[in-house]
Amino acid sequence: MKRLFVIKIGGQVLDDHDQTSSFLRDFAAIDARKILVHGGGKIATRIGEQLGIVPHYVEGRRITDEPTRDLVTMVYGGLVNKMLVSQLQALGCNALGLTGADGKALAAVRRPVTQIDYGFVGDVVPGGVNTALLEDLLDGGVTPVFAPLTLGNGEILNTNADTIASTLAIAFGRTSTVRLIFCFDKKGVLSDVHDGESVIPHLTENSYASLRQSRALADGILPKLENAFATIHAGVSEVLIGDAKDLLKNTGKNTMGTLITA
Amino acid sequence: MKRLFVIKIGGQVLDDHDQTSSFLRDFAAIDARKILVHGGGKIATRIGEQLGIVPHYVEGRRITDEPTRDLVTMVYGGLVNKMLVSQLQALGCNALGLTGADGKALAAVRRPVTQIDYGFVGDVVPGGVNTALLEDLLDGGVTPVFAPLTLGNGEILNTNADTIASTLAIAFGRTSTVRLIFCFDKKGVLSDVHDGESVIPHLTENSYASLRQSRALADGILPKLENAFATIHAGVSEVLIGDAKDLLKNTGKNTMGTLITA
Repeated sequence: MKRLFVIKIGGQVLDDHDQTSSFLRDFAAIDARKILVHGGGKIATRIGEQLGIVPHYVEGRRITDEPTRDLVTMVYGGLVNKMLVSQLQALGCNALGLTGADGKALAAVRRPVTQIDYGFVGDVVPGGVNTALLEDLLDGGVTPVFAPLTLGNGEILNTNADTIASTLAIAFGRTSTVRLIFCFDKKGVLSDVHDGESVIPHLTENSYASLRQSRALADGILPKLENAFATIHAGVSEVLIGDAKDLLKNTGKNTMGTLITA
Repeated sequence: MKRLFVIKIGGQVLDDHDQTSSFLRDFAAIDARKILVHGGGKIATRIGEQLGIVPHYVEGRRITDEPTRDLVTMVYGGLVNKMLVSQLQALGCNALGLTGADGKALAAVRRPVTQIDYGFVGDVVPGGVNTALLEDLLDGGVTPVFAPLTLGNGEILNTNADTIASTLAIAFGRTSTVRLIFCFDKKGVLSDVHDGESVIPHLTENSYASLRQSRALADGILPKLENAFATIHAGVSEVLIGDAKDLLKNTGKNTMGTLITA
Protein backbone atom coordinates (compact mmCIF):
# COMPACT_ATOMS: atom_id res chain seq x y z
CA MET A 1 0.00 0.00 0.00
CA LYS A 2 1.05 3.56 -0.61
CA ARG A 3 2.09 5.66 2.36
CA LEU A 4 0.43 8.96 3.21
CA PHE A 5 0.97 11.50 5.97
CA VAL A 6 -1.98 13.64 7.05
CA ILE A 7 -0.60 16.43 9.22
CA LYS A 8 -2.61 18.90 11.24
CA ILE A 9 -1.08 22.16 12.38
CA GLY A 10 -2.91 24.41 14.79
CA GLY A 11 -3.22 28.04 15.65
CA GLN A 12 -0.43 28.22 18.26
CA VAL A 13 2.22 27.53 15.63
CA LEU A 14 0.56 29.68 12.95
CA ASP A 15 0.44 32.67 15.31
CA ASP A 16 4.25 32.66 15.46
CA HIS A 17 6.09 33.63 12.29
CA ASP A 18 9.36 31.83 13.11
CA GLN A 19 7.65 28.65 14.26
CA THR A 20 5.55 28.64 11.08
CA SER A 21 8.62 29.06 8.84
CA SER A 22 10.46 26.32 10.66
CA PHE A 23 7.45 23.98 10.50
CA LEU A 24 6.95 24.60 6.78
CA ARG A 25 10.64 23.93 6.07
CA ASP A 26 10.29 20.55 7.77
CA PHE A 27 6.94 19.83 6.12
CA ALA A 28 8.36 20.61 2.67
CA ALA A 29 11.27 18.25 3.37
CA ILE A 30 9.04 15.19 3.97
CA ASP A 31 9.83 12.91 1.07
CA ALA A 32 6.45 11.20 0.81
CA ARG A 33 2.82 11.87 -0.13
CA LYS A 34 1.34 14.30 2.37
CA ILE A 35 -1.69 16.45 3.11
CA LEU A 36 -1.63 19.48 5.40
CA VAL A 37 -4.68 20.60 7.39
CA HIS A 38 -4.42 23.95 9.14
CA GLY A 39 -6.41 25.63 11.85
CA GLY A 40 -6.96 29.31 12.29
CA GLY A 41 -5.01 31.10 14.94
CA LYS A 42 -5.61 34.45 16.53
CA ILE A 43 -5.45 36.41 13.30
CA ALA A 44 -9.14 35.76 12.57
CA THR A 45 -10.07 37.09 16.02
CA ARG A 46 -7.90 40.18 15.47
CA ILE A 47 -9.30 40.93 12.02
CA GLY A 48 -12.82 40.21 13.29
CA GLU A 49 -12.34 42.80 16.04
CA GLN A 50 -11.10 45.34 13.51
CA LEU A 51 -14.16 44.67 11.36
CA GLY A 52 -16.46 45.04 14.37
CA ILE A 53 -17.65 41.44 14.22
CA VAL A 54 -18.93 40.66 17.71
CA PRO A 55 -18.40 37.04 18.79
CA HIS A 56 -21.61 35.31 19.88
CA TYR A 57 -21.57 32.54 22.44
CA VAL A 58 -24.33 30.17 23.53
CA GLU A 59 -23.59 28.05 26.61
CA GLY A 60 -19.92 28.95 26.28
CA ARG A 61 -19.71 27.82 22.65
CA ARG A 62 -18.77 30.23 19.90
CA ILE A 63 -21.51 30.43 17.25
CA THR A 64 -20.61 30.82 13.59
CA ASP A 65 -23.07 33.48 12.48
CA GLU A 66 -22.94 34.81 8.91
CA PRO A 67 -20.38 37.60 9.52
CA THR A 68 -18.15 35.11 11.35
CA ARG A 69 -18.51 32.59 8.52
CA ASP A 70 -17.47 35.24 6.00
CA LEU A 71 -14.58 36.21 8.30
CA VAL A 72 -13.19 32.67 8.55
CA THR A 73 -13.72 32.16 4.82
CA MET A 74 -11.57 35.25 4.20
CA VAL A 75 -8.94 34.62 6.82
CA TYR A 76 -8.61 30.83 6.83
CA GLY A 77 -9.53 30.19 3.20
CA GLY A 78 -7.72 33.27 1.85
CA LEU A 79 -5.03 34.83 3.99
CA VAL A 80 -3.73 31.87 6.03
CA ASN A 81 -4.19 29.24 3.33
CA LYS A 82 -2.47 31.25 0.59
CA MET A 83 0.32 32.33 2.95
CA LEU A 84 1.04 28.66 3.68
CA VAL A 85 0.73 27.65 0.02
CA SER A 86 3.04 30.40 -1.25
CA GLN A 87 5.64 29.72 1.44
CA LEU A 88 5.56 26.01 0.62
CA GLN A 89 5.96 26.83 -3.08
CA ALA A 90 9.02 28.91 -2.17
CA LEU A 91 10.38 25.82 -0.42
CA GLY A 92 9.88 23.66 -3.52
CA CYS A 93 6.75 21.89 -2.26
CA ASN A 94 4.00 21.99 -4.89
CA ALA A 95 1.18 22.93 -2.52
CA LEU A 96 -2.42 23.56 -3.59
CA GLY A 97 -4.88 25.16 -1.20
CA LEU A 98 -8.37 23.77 -0.82
CA THR A 99 -11.53 24.29 1.14
CA GLY A 100 -14.14 21.55 1.19
CA ALA A 101 -16.05 23.44 -1.50
CA ASP A 102 -13.20 23.25 -4.02
CA GLY A 103 -13.79 20.26 -6.29
CA LYS A 104 -16.32 19.11 -3.66
CA ALA A 105 -13.31 17.93 -1.67
CA LEU A 106 -15.18 17.68 1.64
CA ALA A 107 -18.95 17.40 1.68
CA ALA A 108 -20.60 18.22 4.97
CA VAL A 109 -24.00 18.89 6.49
CA ARG A 110 -24.84 21.91 8.53
CA ARG A 111 -24.97 20.77 12.14
CA PRO A 112 -28.63 20.14 13.07
CA VAL A 113 -30.11 22.54 15.60
CA THR A 114 -30.79 20.82 18.93
CA GLN A 115 -30.35 22.84 22.09
CA ILE A 116 -27.78 25.01 20.37
CA ASP A 117 -27.84 26.44 16.86
CA TYR A 118 -24.14 26.54 16.01
CA GLY A 119 -24.85 28.50 12.84
CA PHE A 120 -22.68 27.86 9.80
CA VAL A 121 -20.87 24.84 11.25
CA GLY A 122 -20.39 21.71 9.17
CA ASP A 123 -20.00 18.07 10.07
CA VAL A 124 -18.35 16.03 7.33
CA VAL A 125 -20.64 13.29 6.03
CA PRO A 126 -19.50 9.66 5.74
CA GLY A 127 -18.10 9.23 2.26
CA GLY A 128 -17.82 13.01 1.99
CA VAL A 129 -14.13 13.01 1.07
CA ASN A 130 -13.47 13.27 -2.67
CA THR A 131 -10.55 10.83 -2.60
CA ALA A 132 -10.55 10.51 -6.40
CA LEU A 133 -9.67 14.20 -6.79
CA LEU A 134 -7.12 14.11 -3.96
CA GLU A 135 -5.47 10.91 -5.26
CA ASP A 136 -5.15 12.53 -8.69
CA LEU A 137 -3.50 15.59 -7.16
CA LEU A 138 -1.17 13.48 -4.98
CA ASP A 139 -0.25 11.26 -7.95
CA GLY A 140 0.61 14.45 -9.86
CA GLY A 141 3.05 15.49 -7.15
CA VAL A 142 0.70 18.06 -5.63
CA THR A 143 0.35 18.51 -1.86
CA PRO A 144 -3.19 19.50 -0.80
CA VAL A 145 -3.36 22.14 1.95
CA PHE A 146 -6.79 22.27 3.63
CA ALA A 147 -8.36 25.26 5.31
CA PRO A 148 -10.87 24.24 8.02
CA LEU A 149 -13.90 24.89 5.82
CA THR A 150 -16.32 22.43 4.24
CA LEU A 151 -19.23 22.50 1.79
CA GLY A 152 -22.79 21.86 2.97
CA ASN A 153 -25.75 22.35 0.67
CA GLY A 154 -23.89 24.80 -1.54
CA GLU A 155 -22.53 26.97 1.26
CA ILE A 156 -19.23 27.28 3.07
CA LEU A 157 -19.28 25.88 6.61
CA ASN A 158 -16.81 26.27 9.47
CA THR A 159 -15.39 22.89 10.51
CA ASN A 160 -12.93 21.80 13.19
CA ALA A 161 -9.48 21.19 11.69
CA ASP A 162 -8.79 18.11 13.87
CA THR A 163 -11.99 16.53 12.56
CA ILE A 164 -11.05 17.30 8.96
CA ALA A 165 -7.63 15.70 9.50
CA SER A 166 -9.18 12.55 11.03
CA THR A 167 -11.79 12.34 8.28
CA LEU A 168 -9.14 12.60 5.56
CA ALA A 169 -6.99 9.98 7.29
CA ILE A 170 -9.92 7.57 7.55
CA ALA A 171 -10.94 8.05 3.91
CA PHE A 172 -7.38 7.29 2.74
CA GLY A 173 -6.99 4.45 5.26
CA ARG A 174 -8.80 2.18 2.82
CA THR A 175 -6.12 2.45 0.14
CA SER A 176 -3.04 3.81 1.90
CA THR A 177 -0.94 3.22 5.00
CA VAL A 178 -1.75 6.48 6.77
CA ARG A 179 0.04 8.14 9.64
CA LEU A 180 -2.11 10.96 11.03
CA ILE A 181 0.02 13.49 12.91
CA PHE A 182 -1.44 16.06 15.28
CA CYS A 183 1.06 18.81 15.99
CA PHE A 184 0.68 19.62 19.64
CA ASP A 185 2.06 22.09 22.17
CA LYS A 186 3.83 19.30 24.09
CA LYS A 187 6.29 16.65 22.92
CA GLY A 188 3.58 13.99 23.16
CA VAL A 189 1.24 12.39 25.65
CA LEU A 190 2.92 12.77 29.06
CA SER A 191 2.93 10.19 31.84
CA ASP A 192 3.65 13.04 34.28
CA VAL A 193 1.88 16.27 33.34
CA HIS A 194 4.53 18.27 35.25
CA ASP A 195 7.40 16.72 33.31
CA GLY A 196 7.44 17.79 29.67
CA GLU A 197 9.99 15.07 28.89
CA SER A 198 7.88 12.18 30.22
CA VAL A 199 6.55 11.27 26.77
CA ILE A 200 4.79 7.93 26.45
CA PRO A 201 6.40 6.69 23.23
CA HIS A 202 3.74 4.16 22.25
CA LEU A 203 0.11 3.62 23.14
CA THR A 204 -2.09 0.71 22.19
CA GLU A 205 -5.63 0.08 23.28
CA ASN A 206 -4.40 -2.24 26.02
CA SER A 207 -1.77 0.11 27.41
CA TYR A 208 -4.23 3.01 27.17
CA ALA A 209 -6.82 1.05 29.17
CA SER A 210 -4.38 0.34 32.03
CA LEU A 211 -3.13 3.96 32.07
CA ARG A 212 -6.70 5.18 32.32
CA GLN A 213 -7.41 2.81 35.19
CA SER A 214 -4.38 4.05 37.10
CA ARG A 215 -5.52 7.64 36.37
CA ALA A 216 -2.03 8.49 35.16
CA LEU A 217 -3.18 10.69 32.27
CA ALA A 218 -4.18 14.35 32.39
CA ASP A 219 -7.89 14.93 31.78
CA GLY A 220 -7.18 17.31 28.92
CA ILE A 221 -5.58 14.65 26.76
CA LEU A 222 -8.42 12.11 27.09
CA PRO A 223 -10.68 13.51 24.33
CA LYS A 224 -7.68 13.64 21.97
CA LEU A 225 -6.89 9.99 22.74
CA GLU A 226 -10.52 8.90 22.38
CA ASN A 227 -10.52 10.59 18.99
CA ALA A 228 -7.20 8.95 18.09
CA PHE A 229 -8.47 5.45 18.90
CA ALA A 230 -11.73 6.10 17.04
CA THR A 231 -9.60 6.97 14.02
CA ILE A 232 -7.55 3.79 14.45
CA HIS A 233 -10.76 1.74 14.70
CA ALA A 234 -11.92 3.30 11.46
CA GLY A 235 -8.88 1.82 9.68
CA VAL A 236 -6.04 4.33 10.07
CA SER A 237 -2.71 2.60 10.77
CA GLU A 238 -1.05 5.13 13.04
CA VAL A 239 -1.90 8.33 14.87
CA LEU A 240 0.93 10.42 16.28
CA ILE A 241 0.63 13.24 18.80
CA GLY A 242 3.80 15.32 18.98
CA ASP A 243 5.49 18.70 18.93
CA ALA A 244 5.51 20.60 15.62
CA LYS A 245 9.28 21.04 16.15
CA ASP A 246 9.75 17.26 15.97
CA LEU A 247 7.86 16.84 12.70
CA LEU A 248 10.72 15.30 10.72
CA LYS A 249 11.49 12.79 13.49
CA ASN A 250 7.79 12.04 13.81
CA THR A 251 7.47 11.17 10.13
CA GLY A 252 10.33 8.69 10.49
CA LYS A 253 10.84 5.38 12.24
CA ASN A 254 12.22 6.66 15.53
CA THR A 255 9.42 8.96 16.58
CA MET A 256 9.75 11.53 19.39
CA GLY A 257 6.04 11.91 20.16
CA THR A 258 3.39 9.40 21.16
CA LEU A 259 2.64 6.83 18.47
CA ILE A 260 -0.83 5.32 18.75
CA THR A 261 -1.66 2.04 17.06
CA ALA A 262 -4.25 -0.70 17.48
CA MET B 1 -9.18 20.10 -31.11
CA LYS B 2 -11.00 20.32 -27.80
CA ARG B 3 -13.08 23.41 -27.12
CA LEU B 4 -12.51 25.63 -24.10
CA PHE B 5 -14.19 28.79 -22.84
CA VAL B 6 -12.15 31.19 -20.72
CA ILE B 7 -14.58 33.66 -19.18
CA LYS B 8 -13.69 36.80 -17.27
CA ILE B 9 -16.20 38.42 -14.95
CA GLY B 10 -15.49 41.78 -13.39
CA GLY B 11 -16.31 43.73 -10.30
CA GLN B 12 -19.45 45.46 -11.59
CA VAL B 13 -21.32 42.14 -11.78
CA LEU B 14 -19.82 40.76 -8.55
CA ASP B 15 -20.92 43.85 -6.61
CA ASP B 16 -24.55 43.00 -7.38
CA HIS B 17 -25.98 39.90 -5.70
CA ASP B 18 -28.75 39.25 -8.24
CA GLN B 19 -26.51 39.82 -11.26
CA THR B 20 -23.93 37.44 -9.76
CA SER B 21 -26.53 34.70 -9.15
CA SER B 22 -27.90 35.07 -12.65
CA PHE B 23 -24.41 35.01 -14.19
CA LEU B 24 -23.42 31.91 -12.20
CA ARG B 25 -26.60 30.10 -13.27
CA ASP B 26 -25.72 30.74 -16.89
CA PHE B 27 -22.04 29.88 -16.35
CA ALA B 28 -22.96 26.57 -14.68
CA ALA B 29 -25.23 25.75 -17.63
CA ILE B 30 -22.43 25.98 -20.23
CA ASP B 31 -22.07 22.42 -21.44
CA ALA B 32 -18.34 22.53 -22.30
CA ARG B 33 -14.92 22.81 -20.69
CA LYS B 34 -14.61 26.24 -19.08
CA ILE B 35 -12.43 28.35 -16.80
CA LEU B 36 -13.70 31.35 -14.84
CA VAL B 37 -11.47 34.30 -13.95
CA HIS B 38 -12.91 36.84 -11.55
CA GLY B 39 -11.95 40.36 -10.58
CA GLY B 40 -12.47 41.99 -7.26
CA GLY B 41 -15.29 44.45 -6.91
CA LYS B 42 -15.90 47.10 -4.31
CA ILE B 43 -15.95 44.69 -1.39
CA ALA B 44 -12.15 44.79 -1.04
CA THR B 45 -12.26 48.58 -0.86
CA ARG B 46 -15.01 48.44 1.76
CA ILE B 47 -13.23 45.86 3.94
CA GLY B 48 -9.94 47.73 3.47
CA GLU B 49 -11.57 50.91 4.79
CA GLN B 50 -12.96 49.02 7.79
CA LEU B 51 -9.47 47.64 8.49
CA GLY B 52 -7.96 51.11 8.20
CA ILE B 53 -5.86 50.21 5.15
CA VAL B 54 -5.08 53.50 3.46
CA PRO B 55 -4.84 53.27 -0.35
CA HIS B 56 -1.54 54.59 -1.72
CA TYR B 57 -1.33 56.10 -5.17
CA VAL B 58 1.72 57.11 -7.21
CA GLU B 59 1.01 59.11 -10.36
CA GLY B 60 -2.63 58.13 -10.13
CA ARG B 61 -1.88 54.40 -9.94
CA ARG B 62 -2.90 52.33 -6.92
CA ILE B 63 0.12 50.70 -5.30
CA THR B 64 -0.17 47.20 -3.82
CA ASP B 65 1.68 47.63 -0.53
CA GLU B 66 1.86 44.71 1.91
CA PRO B 67 -1.40 45.45 3.79
CA THR B 68 -3.20 45.80 0.44
CA ARG B 69 -1.69 42.55 -0.82
CA ASP B 70 -2.91 40.74 2.32
CA LEU B 71 -6.31 42.41 1.88
CA VAL B 72 -6.75 41.22 -1.72
CA THR B 73 -5.45 37.76 -0.76
CA MET B 74 -8.17 37.56 1.88
CA VAL B 75 -10.97 39.09 -0.09
CA TYR B 76 -10.30 37.90 -3.64
CA GLY B 77 -8.60 34.59 -2.77
CA GLY B 78 -10.85 33.81 0.19
CA LEU B 79 -14.21 35.54 0.37
CA VAL B 80 -15.05 36.20 -3.29
CA ASN B 81 -13.44 33.04 -4.68
CA LYS B 82 -15.10 30.68 -2.20
CA MET B 83 -18.45 32.46 -2.55
CA LEU B 84 -18.31 31.84 -6.31
CA VAL B 85 -17.08 28.24 -5.88
CA SER B 86 -19.74 27.30 -3.33
CA GLN B 87 -22.53 28.90 -5.37
CA LEU B 88 -21.34 27.05 -8.48
CA GLN B 89 -21.25 23.80 -6.51
CA ALA B 90 -24.86 24.46 -5.46
CA LEU B 91 -25.68 24.78 -9.18
CA GLY B 92 -24.06 21.42 -9.96
CA CYS B 93 -20.88 22.86 -11.47
CA ASN B 94 -17.80 21.19 -9.94
CA ALA B 95 -15.81 24.39 -9.39
CA LEU B 96 -12.37 24.52 -7.78
CA GLY B 97 -10.88 27.84 -6.70
CA LEU B 98 -7.29 28.69 -7.48
CA THR B 99 -4.79 31.47 -7.11
CA GLY B 100 -1.61 31.36 -9.16
CA ALA B 101 0.19 29.95 -6.11
CA ASP B 102 -1.98 26.84 -5.93
CA GLY B 103 -0.23 24.03 -7.75
CA LYS B 104 1.96 26.74 -9.28
CA ALA B 105 -0.94 27.43 -11.61
CA LEU B 106 0.29 30.89 -12.67
CA ALA B 107 3.94 31.81 -12.25
CA ALA B 108 4.69 35.52 -12.35
CA VAL B 109 7.46 38.00 -11.64
CA ARG B 110 7.08 41.00 -9.44
CA ARG B 111 6.85 44.01 -11.73
CA PRO B 112 10.30 45.61 -11.98
CA VAL B 113 10.64 49.03 -10.39
CA THR B 114 11.11 51.74 -13.02
CA GLN B 115 9.59 55.15 -12.36
CA ILE B 116 6.90 53.56 -10.22
CA ASP B 117 7.23 50.76 -7.67
CA TYR B 118 3.85 49.08 -7.95
CA GLY B 119 4.60 46.93 -4.93
CA PHE B 120 3.27 43.38 -4.84
CA VAL B 121 2.07 43.33 -8.43
CA GLY B 122 2.81 40.36 -10.66
CA ASP B 123 3.21 40.00 -14.40
CA VAL B 124 2.67 36.43 -15.60
CA VAL B 125 5.81 35.03 -17.23
CA PRO B 126 5.73 33.38 -20.68
CA GLY B 127 5.15 29.68 -20.11
CA GLY B 128 3.96 30.49 -16.59
CA VAL B 129 0.63 28.67 -16.94
CA ASN B 130 0.61 25.15 -15.50
CA THR B 131 -1.53 23.73 -18.31
CA ALA B 132 -0.76 20.14 -17.26
CA LEU B 133 -2.48 20.67 -13.90
CA LEU B 134 -5.38 22.57 -15.44
CA GLU B 135 -5.87 19.98 -18.23
CA ASP B 136 -5.99 17.24 -15.58
CA LEU B 137 -8.61 19.14 -13.64
CA LEU B 138 -10.67 19.89 -16.77
CA ASP B 139 -10.43 16.26 -17.92
CA GLY B 140 -11.71 15.23 -14.48
CA GLY B 141 -14.80 17.41 -14.94
CA VAL B 142 -13.52 20.18 -12.68
CA THR B 143 -14.00 23.88 -13.53
CA PRO B 144 -11.10 26.07 -12.35
CA VAL B 145 -12.12 29.44 -10.86
CA PHE B 146 -9.22 31.91 -10.70
CA ALA B 147 -8.81 34.75 -8.26
CA PRO B 148 -6.67 37.60 -9.70
CA LEU B 149 -3.56 36.55 -7.77
CA THR B 150 -0.33 34.99 -9.02
CA LEU B 151 2.85 33.51 -7.56
CA GLY B 152 6.17 35.34 -7.89
CA ASN B 153 9.27 34.15 -6.09
CA GLY B 154 7.27 32.36 -3.41
CA GLU B 155 4.91 35.23 -2.66
CA ILE B 156 1.36 36.13 -3.63
CA LEU B 157 1.13 38.98 -6.14
CA ASN B 158 -1.82 41.08 -7.23
CA THR B 159 -2.48 40.64 -10.97
CA ASN B 160 -5.02 42.12 -13.36
CA ALA B 161 -7.86 39.66 -14.04
CA ASP B 162 -8.10 40.57 -17.75
CA THR B 163 -4.42 39.72 -18.16
CA ILE B 164 -4.86 36.40 -16.36
CA ALA B 165 -7.77 35.53 -18.64
CA SER B 166 -5.77 36.39 -21.78
CA THR B 167 -2.74 34.48 -20.51
CA LEU B 168 -4.81 31.37 -19.81
CA ALA B 169 -6.50 31.61 -23.23
CA ILE B 170 -3.13 31.89 -24.99
CA ALA B 171 -1.63 28.96 -23.07
CA PHE B 172 -4.58 26.73 -24.02
CA GLY B 173 -4.68 28.08 -27.58
CA ARG B 174 -1.91 25.64 -28.48
CA THR B 175 -4.04 22.57 -27.77
CA SER B 176 -7.64 23.78 -27.73
CA THR B 177 -10.04 25.91 -29.73
CA VAL B 178 -10.45 28.71 -27.23
CA ARG B 179 -13.12 31.39 -27.06
CA LEU B 180 -12.06 34.07 -24.57
CA ILE B 181 -15.08 35.99 -23.29
CA PHE B 182 -14.81 39.33 -21.50
CA CYS B 183 -18.02 40.15 -19.68
CA PHE B 184 -18.52 43.84 -20.14
CA ASP B 185 -20.96 46.55 -19.01
CA LYS B 186 -22.25 47.01 -22.57
CA LYS B 187 -23.67 44.50 -25.05
CA GLY B 188 -20.48 44.64 -27.08
CA VAL B 189 -18.28 47.05 -29.01
CA LEU B 190 -20.59 49.86 -30.15
CA SER B 191 -20.45 51.66 -33.50
CA ASP B 192 -22.30 54.55 -31.88
CA VAL B 193 -21.30 55.11 -28.27
CA HIS B 194 -24.69 56.79 -27.58
CA ASP B 195 -26.65 53.79 -28.85
CA GLY B 196 -26.29 50.74 -26.59
CA GLU B 197 -27.85 48.55 -29.29
CA SER B 198 -25.34 49.47 -32.02
CA VAL B 199 -23.23 46.38 -31.40
CA ILE B 200 -20.63 45.52 -34.03
CA PRO B 201 -21.24 41.78 -34.33
CA HIS B 202 -17.89 40.81 -35.82
CA LEU B 203 -14.47 42.42 -35.96
CA THR B 204 -11.45 41.23 -37.90
CA GLU B 205 -8.13 42.96 -38.20
CA ASN B 206 -9.19 44.48 -41.52
CA SER B 207 -12.56 45.78 -40.35
CA TYR B 208 -10.93 47.05 -37.14
CA ALA B 209 -8.32 48.98 -39.15
CA SER B 210 -10.97 50.73 -41.24
CA LEU B 211 -13.10 51.54 -38.18
CA ARG B 212 -10.05 53.05 -36.50
CA GLN B 213 -9.32 55.16 -39.56
CA SER B 214 -12.86 56.48 -39.64
CA ARG B 215 -12.57 57.21 -35.87
CA ALA B 216 -15.90 55.46 -35.29
CA LEU B 217 -14.85 53.76 -32.04
CA ALA B 218 -14.87 55.23 -28.53
CA ASP B 219 -11.38 55.80 -27.13
CA GLY B 220 -12.14 53.70 -24.04
CA ILE B 221 -12.59 50.52 -26.07
CA LEU B 222 -9.30 50.79 -27.97
CA PRO B 223 -7.02 49.27 -25.28
CA LYS B 224 -9.46 46.35 -24.92
CA LEU B 225 -9.41 45.77 -28.68
CA GLU B 226 -5.62 46.06 -28.89
CA ASN B 227 -5.44 43.44 -26.14
CA ALA B 228 -8.00 41.25 -27.94
CA PHE B 229 -6.03 41.29 -31.20
CA ALA B 230 -2.76 40.63 -29.35
CA THR B 231 -4.46 37.55 -27.88
CA ILE B 232 -5.67 36.47 -31.33
CA HIS B 233 -2.13 36.92 -32.72
CA ALA B 234 -0.87 34.69 -29.92
CA GLY B 235 -3.02 31.84 -31.20
CA VAL B 236 -6.43 32.21 -29.57
CA SER B 237 -9.26 31.46 -32.02
CA GLU B 238 -11.92 33.89 -30.80
CA VAL B 239 -12.28 36.74 -28.36
CA LEU B 240 -15.76 37.92 -27.46
CA ILE B 241 -16.68 41.16 -25.71
CA GLY B 242 -20.25 41.14 -24.43
CA ASP B 243 -22.71 41.66 -21.63
CA ALA B 244 -22.64 39.20 -18.71
CA LYS B 245 -26.41 38.82 -19.20
CA ASP B 246 -25.83 37.42 -22.71
CA LEU B 247 -23.34 34.78 -21.58
CA LEU B 248 -25.28 31.75 -22.83
CA LYS B 249 -25.88 33.34 -26.25
CA ASN B 250 -22.23 34.38 -26.37
CA THR B 251 -21.02 30.82 -25.82
CA GLY B 252 -23.14 29.65 -28.75
CA LYS B 253 -23.10 30.13 -32.49
CA ASN B 254 -25.36 33.20 -32.73
CA THR B 255 -23.48 35.57 -30.47
CA MET B 256 -24.96 38.83 -29.16
CA GLY B 257 -21.69 40.62 -28.38
CA THR B 258 -18.71 41.47 -30.57
CA LEU B 259 -16.84 38.44 -31.83
CA ILE B 260 -13.22 39.14 -32.70
CA THR B 261 -11.27 36.82 -34.95
CA ALA B 262 -8.16 37.04 -37.11
